[in-house]
Amino acid sequence: MSCYKSMTPAELNAEYEKVLAQAESLKGEGLNLNLTRGKPEKSQLDLSNPMIATLNEGWMCDGMDVRNYGCLEGLPSCRKLFAELLGCKPEEVIIGGNASLNLMYDLIAKAYTHGLKNSPRPWSQEPVVKWLCPVPGYDRHFNVTLSFGMELINIPMTDEGPDMDLVEKYAADPAVKGMWCVPKYSNPDGIVYSEATCRRIAAMKTGAPDFTLMWDNAYGFHAFEGPLADLPDMLALCREAGNPDRVYEFASTSKVTFAGAGVSCMAASVENLKYILSLMTFQTIGYNKVDQLMHVRFLKDRAGTLAHMEKHAAIMAPKFRAVIDALNSEIAPTGTAHWFEPKGGYFVSLFVMPGTAKRTYALCKEMGVALTAAGATYPHGIDPDDSNLRIAPSFAPMDELVKALEVLCVAVKLSALEKLLGK
Amino acid sequence: MSCYKSMTPAELNAEYEKVLAQAESLKGEGLNLNLTRGKPEKSQLDLSNPMIATLNEGWMCDGMDVRNYGCLEGLPSCRKLFAELLGCKPEEVIIGGNASLNLMYDLIAKAYTHGLKNSPRPWSQEPVVKWLCPVPGYDRHFNVTLSFGMELINIPMTDEGPDMDLVEKYAADPAVKGMWCVPKYSNPDGIVYSEATCRRIAAMKTGAPDFTLMWDNAYGFHAFEGPLADLPDMLALCREAGNPDRVYEFASTSKVTFAGAGVSCMAASVENLKYILSLMTFQTIGYNKVDQLMHVRFLKDRAGTLAHMEKHAAIMAPKFRAVIDALNSEIAPTGTAHWFEPKGGYFVSLFVMPGTAKRTYALCKEMGVALTAAGATYPHGIDPDDSNLRIAPSFAPMDELVKALEVLCVAVKLSALEKLLGK
Repeated sequence: MSCYKSMTPAELNAEYEKVLAQAESLKGEGLNLNLTRGKPEKSQLDLSNPMIATLNEGWMCDGMDVRNYGCLEGLPSCRKLFAELLGCKPEEVIIGGNASLNLMYDLIAKAYTHGLKNSPRPWSQEPVVKWLCPVPGYDRHFNVTLSFGMELINIPMTDEGPDMDLVEKYAADPAVKGMWCVPKYSNPDGIVYSEATCRRIAAMKTGAPDFTLMWDNAYGFHAFEGPLADLPDMLALCREAGNPDRVYEFASTSKVTFAGAGVSCMAASVENLKYILSLMTFQTIGYNKVDQLMHVRFLKDRAGTLAHMEKHAAIMAPKFRAVIDALNSEIAPTGTAHWFEPKGGYFVSLFVMPGTAKRTYALCKEMGVALTAAGATYPHGIDPDDSNLRIAPSFAPMDELVKALEVLCVAVKLSALEKLLGK
Repeated sequence: MSCYKSMTPAELNAEYEKVLAQAESLKGEGLNLNLTRGKPEKSQLDLSNPMIATLNEGWMCDGMDVRNYGCLEGLPSCRKLFAELLGCKPEEVIIGGNASLNLMYDLIAKAYTHGLKNSPRPWSQEPVVKWLCPVPGYDRHFNVTLSFGMELINIPMTDEGPDMDLVEKYAADPAVKGMWCVPKYSNPDGIVYSEATCRRIAAMKTGAPDFTLMWDNAYGFHAFEGPLADLPDMLALCREAGNPDRVYEFASTSKVTFAGAGVSCMAASVENLKYILSLMTFQTIGYNKVDQLMHVRFLKDRAGTLAHMEKHAAIMAPKFRAVIDALNSEIAPTGTAHWFEPKGGYFVSLFVMPGTAKRTYALCKEMGVALTAAGATYPHGIDPDDSNLRIAPSFAPMDELVKALEVLCVAVKLSALEKLLGK
């Protein structure tokens, strides 16, 4: 196999016939495999089963019976745990329910209904609200902001995070109210923002006094290869830059303990939290403290959590290695695609030959492999290059993953060949 | 002791001196008691401790691993459980997090940001939004609607529910977008809406096409004396009256299992739920299914839940009896106050002599007994008669309750005597 672009038409046709035959053969196998979901597999969930039994130690924590009402901001012990994990202060953290997405959505909903601390008016009263979206990115982020009718602006990612020249340019517009960021092991590229990028985001001039940095540290402790990457405490950087209220950081234990039954948190300046709690007090008497307590007892502290994450890494690493190995051996020689080799997070971001991502997705489907829809990593589902595919290897058992990767590689090649041959 | 109104001034003065001496004596005891909170006591929480161990039976339910992501609408088994309890259909129920208040708030927030199914526009774009509040009622209800800037309209309660002549009159105004109701063992009066009242609410003409009935069935299975009161299925009544999308019903297990760690639900027409889920899908991937599963395994079904509620009743009934006995023996003869004798719910609604509720509250405080603030049962905290006090006897241990009631009765009498004597 050699680089497709250096092949003669005859060679390309021969390769096409070969790959087509592979595809036909795979189609005949009647597969039903799935690489769509950034979900932990069963053995990862099993790692946290002992968490439940910690409740046998009793119901009191921080002087409270966790079964009863109250404690809007979350158990002090749980705030301390997340503060250790994020590198901020306990008083800068409040605890939510089982989903950090819910905290993110609610923050933006409150911006619309009431305005945030520094908002001139509720965003529902603004003629237009614009929002910066590093791409490729997380579809659920984009969809939250789209669901409120915002105008989304694509910001290309670089190896150090979003293109900051563009971010600074757009942020000067008072209609631009904020930006999504997954600063560590980004979804889907696995990029870790550089400190220089973080500092520029913290310090940049914004047109809106209530510019809202949605800092989704979803994979803050989720390394599976090598040491955990460093990320500065964004709350401190924003404070030092004179913009203490700019950032809202989110995290959860969804990919630490139980994906659907973890504990989430939001970290922000004490003044921001004071304001948000003054609105949250109408929304709930407090989130589930039994869940908070069992997490505190099970994970204990930063060291305990990182030790637990190593068990996840042992399950995840071979799967990511399998993806990278397959791409290296099957696709690299063809020169038709490139990809990131993430050291943490949940995805491999694959850029196939421009104009062939949708076709690759469709070919995979025909062969019985479900991928995240092409385009899903861009606002409105529109990838301007029709190139990016998000591969999620965590949920499938290894044997299914290997088979699905075989299908994926055939589809990547076949769609490239079709394109090159004008078929 | 005889009726204060038939006493001579000299008799009143003598009574005043006597009660004042009692108050002084109680003040000297340095009490620190609390009747403010509608919280279950520890032994009630202990009833549900075995719920946790049901997770030892495994993690699968309805074909799902409950630990993982997904199932936005809630576990089918949990929807079925709540449908049995509410008397509606499983497909009319979705499951939320630990607090039904959160579901209520979020529904109204969505009305503001996106509008509800039949809304001409999001409520944030309406010049004014008005809302009907049966009084006395639940302060957290009032505060949700106040926090969105609504104009609240007091509707006096009758023995059969809100004054329906007034409700019908106000509901004809297109700016009136809805009404709060606690239809069974109402907070604080303990009134059960009559079927005639329910039918009038279901069938009345409303000016707003998206009139939103917030039917908070918070005490739907919470009898502590006699048989559980009947309440019609409001979803069916609204459907039969041609207004299927009018009602949103709420319930939770907060006062069944763990107050701060139960499971909540919202019931509404299938069309309403379809619309709400189309917005909720941006807010969360799904609520905590581990909590849902343990509730299903522990409570099992309607019969299992009602059997469990009898254990709560055995703890609650003597406390409510103590309140009523104290009022009957100490206050009834003075003719200065009246109250309801609830058969379920969490409160005793006490109406002291008009113009003396705040003073009674202050006197209790001086004697070391915290009551829910006078006025709290009315929007803006303003009781036009300054008469209603909400007594919450559940949380205090029996000995503390008895002492607190002694204080309360002295305060009720003393404030009435002060008023009658012009002091």
